[in-house]
Amino acid sequence: MIAVVGLGKAGLPLSFVIADSGLKVIGVDVDAKKCDMINRGTNPIPEEPGLGELVEKHGGKNLIATPEYEDAAGCDVFIVIVPLFVDDTYNPDFGILESAFRSVGRILKRGDLVVLETTVPPMTTETLARRWLEEESGLELGEFHLAHSPERIMTGYSISRLREFAKVVGGVDEESGTKVYDIYKKFIADLHMVSSARVAEFIKLMEGCYRDVNIALANELFKISGELGINFYEAREYANHEYCHLHMPSTGVGGHCIPVYPWFLIKYMEEREKFSYSELLRTSRTINDEMIEYWAGKIILECLKVNKPLDDVKICIKGITFRQGVKQLYHSRNLALVKLLMEKGLNIFVYDELFSEEELEKMGLRGISPDDADLIFDSSELWMEIP
Amino acid sequence: MIAVVGLGKAGLPLSFVIADSGLKVIGVDVDAKKCDMINRGTNPIPEEPGLGELVEKHGGKNLIATPEYEDAAGCDVFIVIVPLFVDDTYNPDFGILESAFRSVGRILKRGDLVVLETTVPPMTTETLARRWLEEESGLELGEFHLAHSPERIMTGYSISRLREFAKVVGGVDEESGTKVYDIYKKFIADLHMVSSARVAEFIKLMEGCYRDVNIALANELFKISGELGINFYEAREYANHEYCHLHMPSTGVGGHCIPVYPWFLIKYMEEREKFSYSELLRTSRTINDEMIEYWAGKIILECLKVNKPLDDVKICIKGITFRQGVKQLYHSRNLALVKLLMEKGLNIFVYDELFSEEELEKMGLRGISPDDADLIFDSSELWMEIP
Repeated sequence: MIAVVGLGKAGLPLSFVIADSGLKVIGVDVDAKKCDMINRGTNPIPEEPGLGELVEKHGGKNLIATPEYEDAAGCDVFIVIVPLFVDDTYNPDFGILESAFRSVGRILKRGDLVVLETTVPPMTTETLARRWLEEESGLELGEFHLAHSPERIMTGYSISRLREFAKVVGGVDEESGTKVYDIYKKFIADLHMVSSARVAEFIKLMEGCYRDVNIALANELFKISGELGINFYEAREYANHEYCHLHMPSTGVGGHCIPVYPWFLIKYMEEREKFSYSELLRTSRTINDEMIEYWAGKIILECLKVNKPLDDVKICIKGITFRQGVKQLYHSRNLALVKLLMEKGLNIFVYDELFSEEELEKMGLRGISPDDADLIFDSSELWMEIP
Repeated sequence: MIAVVGLGKAGLPLSFVIADSGLKVIGVDVDAKKCDMINRGTNPIPEEPGLGELVEKHGGKNLIATPEYEDAAGCDVFIVIVPLFVDDTYNPDFGILESAFRSVGRILKRGDLVVLETTVPPMTTETLARRWLEEESGLELGEFHLAHSPERIMTGYSISRLREFAKVVGGVDEESGTKVYDIYKKFIADLHMVSSARVAEFIKLMEGCYRDVNIALANELFKISGELGINFYEAREYANHEYCHLHMPSTGVGGHCIPVYPWFLIKYMEEREKFSYSELLRTSRTINDEMIEYWAGKIILECLKVNKPLDDVKICIKGITFRQGVKQLYHSRNLALVKLLMEKGLNIFVYDELFSEEELEKMGLRGISPDDADLIFDSSELWMEIP
């Protein structure tokens, strides 16, 4: 029997894909209400295609959700897939992860396997996770098994990604590697074993860095094409081919993943005093985070076209979430742009169909209907309009 | 009738693909011997697959090579595809390009079309090329037509690239755009017209920048994986998928293309005092060019394993060209690595199957059979061996 610890956006699809393969799953989540909902067959993430049917079919049957770790004591595989947050300077706060591992440690038995799926700084699985489990269980590695398998969920594609995308597993020792491979093989079609948990962790960080650096490149080439009076999108369309994959420009990169993962490597290199080993990652972070200054400049200059004193121009930033259509604000560069423009003393309003007037007010923002603004900046499509 | 000016690695395959489409071509090249060879049906670039048959079939018939521009006076389309070299600080030396354009200008007639295929700094086609043609021909743009179509040749794949790869054309004015599209359509299957010559130029620079930045990223992640004790290649294999295209690490990037093109944009941004607009391109150049310091350090530390005083250790750098199997040294980082290690006072030898002992000596290098060395560094495969 398999326990999945953490029934969030990544853990829930995974746990139901496992249940759908015919295995019995205990889903552990601190949110008791969410557990009840799942056990009644109601999908707490309705926006995830394909998940609803699985929850309806297996919720409370093949998959039993519970807020109590004790209910998972009969399991012999524990998959930990809880959030890892970072503080304002991107230092990870291991609180939730530690609590999950220590709780698993308390019910861990000889021969059990624990798999970490959360994206973590290098070597977290083999150091911290191992220590937490050993301290609580009284067992030593070898008596239990420990592995890493990076989640590659993407909101909106979670089920299909698990079913069709390559997934990687790696053990902290050889036996753990074989064990995690044999078990994951039961529910993941395209599975690959790598030589260690450390490699498995690094694979996920590399992917994130590829994205961040290539978004920074797109942003830089976007700025250059602006200087050249060239339409970036036209040039990109014909530059891209089998060997060229230029990304899209943006106001920066938000969310819990891409803007965070490079810091795991940057900080690790700093600890080792290899400051020059993460130059490109750091430069990319700076470029992406400072895109809001670029856009603020563009927006202010666009006000030249509005026949009003600058402080009278009603500017509407359309879209404040970090990704269009997802009501999340973590490290949202669109929200950062709004605050930056407000700080500069401009007359800033926002519009986002996901937020009510009251919600915006609570955040210290003023809502507006785009039609009532003098200038609209669409943060996801990157265009400006004078209605 | 179409004239192709420059029968080098890029111009020769292009001119024969045009000839093979049934059009008559005059190939102009300063090298009279090469022209004779071509007219006799002998391929001057035997290493280019598929080219030999075309030269045999069309050389001296559909395609006539000549060192005299006058022989191309009857042509109404002129494709200029000559080298653009840069000086030590990457400022372009337009000498060859100017000479080619002025020569074309002298035989240019009303209604003719001139197409630049050489990769150039932004706006070269619409400024310099236009001026050279106008000054020599006495005509004004509009009386003749001018366009850009970036060559996307890759040594070893030149014919197949022309036949199968997307090709882009863009005119300096609308009429030039239509004209170049109609003509190129006769011999290029996958042809796309973009809105201007400037966009066409930029597309090629973007591609080069994508490559350079992504090689820098691979090099940076390679260094980080070394610190982590991880096999980069293993991690890369499983990190790459449909949305992730991590490149290969190296001693840096050599040749006339990738290490040069980013500088065209960096310098253009500097001229406009937008120093921060090319941060990522510049950082990537630095990372790639400084990889030789990284490898020098690695090689020196590997000498710890050789039981000899350090200055006695015979170190063999295997491979000195900028690309394996191509006898070219321009901006070769492997050669730069050799020189760097020599400067440091180490006992450096080289081995490259493309160079004789005498050729190496002329370059101030000492040849060695790898078996006679105490330590071998393979510059293309990036491994070290103590034989």
